[in-house]
Amino acid sequence: MSLEEYFKCLSDRERAIFEGAISMGALFHQFTGTPVNKETLKSLKVAIEDSIKLQPSIEDVEVEINLEDEDGGFGYVSLEGKMLNVKIISRVRDVKAIIRMEYIDELNYPLIYVEDVKEG
Amino acid sequence: MSLEEYFKCLSDRERAIFEGAISMGALFHQFTGTPVNKETLKSLKVAIEDSIKLQPSIEDVEVEINLEDEDGGFGYVSLEGKMLNVKIISRVRDVKAIIRMEYIDELNYPLIYVEDVKEG
Amino acid sequence: MSLEEYFKCLSDRERAIFEGAISMGALFHQFTGTPVNKETLKSLKVAIEDSIKLQPSIEDVEVEINLEDEDGGFGYVSLEGKMLNVKIISRVRDVKAIIRMEYIDELNYPLIYVEDVKEG
Amino acid sequence: MSLEEYFKCLSDRERAIFEGAISMGALFHQFTGTPVNKETLKSLKVAIEDSIKLQPSIEDVEVEINLEDEDGGFGYVSLEGKMLNVKIISRVRDVKAIIRMEYIDELNYPLIYVEDVKEG
Repeated sequence: MSLEEYFKCLSDRERAIFEGAISMGALFHQFTGTPVNKETLKSLKVAIEDSIKLQPSIEDVEVEINLEDEDGGFGYVSLEGKMLNVKIISRVRDVKAIIRMEYIDELNYPLIYVEDVKEG
Repeated sequence: MSLEEYFKCLSDRERAIFEGAISMGALFHQFTGTPVNKETLKSLKVAIEDSIKLQPSIEDVEVEINLEDEDGGFGYVSLEGKMLNVKIISRVRDVKAIIRMEYIDELNYPLIYVEDVKEG
Repeated sequence: MSLEEYFKCLSDRERAIFEGAISMGALFHQFTGTPVNKETLKSLKVAIEDSIKLQPSIEDVEVEINLEDEDGGFGYVSLEGKMLNVKIISRVRDVKAIIRMEYIDELNYPLIYVEDVKEG
Repeated sequence: MSLEEYFKCLSDRERAIFEGAISMGALFHQFTGTPVNKETLKSLKVAIEDSIKLQPSIEDVEVEINLEDEDGGFGYVSLEGKMLNVKIISRVRDVKAIIRMEYIDELNYPLIYVEDVKEG
């Protein structure tokens, strides 16, 4: 079975949404828990972006880690969803999906949603 | 902003695909690495299913862990993608998506794909 | 090189402390991030205990997950260090070490420490 | 209770061993599963070293990721224990412990052991 056959029930638009969503779920569950502070924030951001960009159909990843309100013991904290603001751009042929993760205070939840899907 | 507004650019079909994909990426990256052997396989399977079923729009999760060919030191192995065979059913209103993760030998890769999407 | 040679610079007491500490670091970083609520707390607890007991020299693991103060969006939260109270008992021949992880409010930190080491 | 009281049953030597072991267990279970290939190996290595150095009593961390024999689908693999060669140096006052993780082929296991403990 060729790779394309596994995705034959999806349009390009659906597959772009699908691949971006997998990568966002992966990002959250792979990296939350990592020790981080203001000195190491940059190297963690780069490693997250580099690794998630390897996944199928991922064109770009932008990670912001916000440690403003954090004050863990021993000078660092464990990375949590509420510190993350992420944009993943996935592309399948002419379709580009912009997937976001953002902490929504009213929901008390790091929401993953689709910001936009563009064709052409 | 209401929750529904975050998803206004998605049809129910697209959103079912989206939510199932997030959960599959989450499952892989949360649980791979866990120590497991034939005695503990059952409790790990149940915990994975129970926890992933909590995520938005997830209706059912079935996890198979295959340890047939595994022989780690000290009587256990770390859970890897090649041991996993997973089905996640996500539902948004009338649309049900069946998401699969399965190790594809020819690809040397734990492929996540959409098996089917059903309406009604 | 035999397995014992890798540990030749450690006394039994030191090795019990060593193995218990590895397992506590493993437990925290493997399972934090897992979706959990009051209904799934039991299966997660059992899976954590079962899997960590597989590691070398681990005799017993007791996990308490405290969700009293938690109120995540969508009816569940991601497991965090502050919800965990863990006891790991490691044994090397006649020496038994009791390793604990407990959230210390004053430190704002899930502290891992040695409660006791018993010989004989 | 002061921080020191939590460690009153440990000598400096034992505490150095203890803290290094926690960090090695943490490193393995936090980062295995991360997508990696030869292009991203460097940023992942730096992020692992930076984050684990934040943990209590950790003086230095050196990570080698060996991808020589790896050939995953889609141009990358998930980081596994067998690809890792790690040295963690922990220090408590005058005592320095050198903790190693190395894949031992005969054991089919990523062994964590103590290479040396130096005083003074």
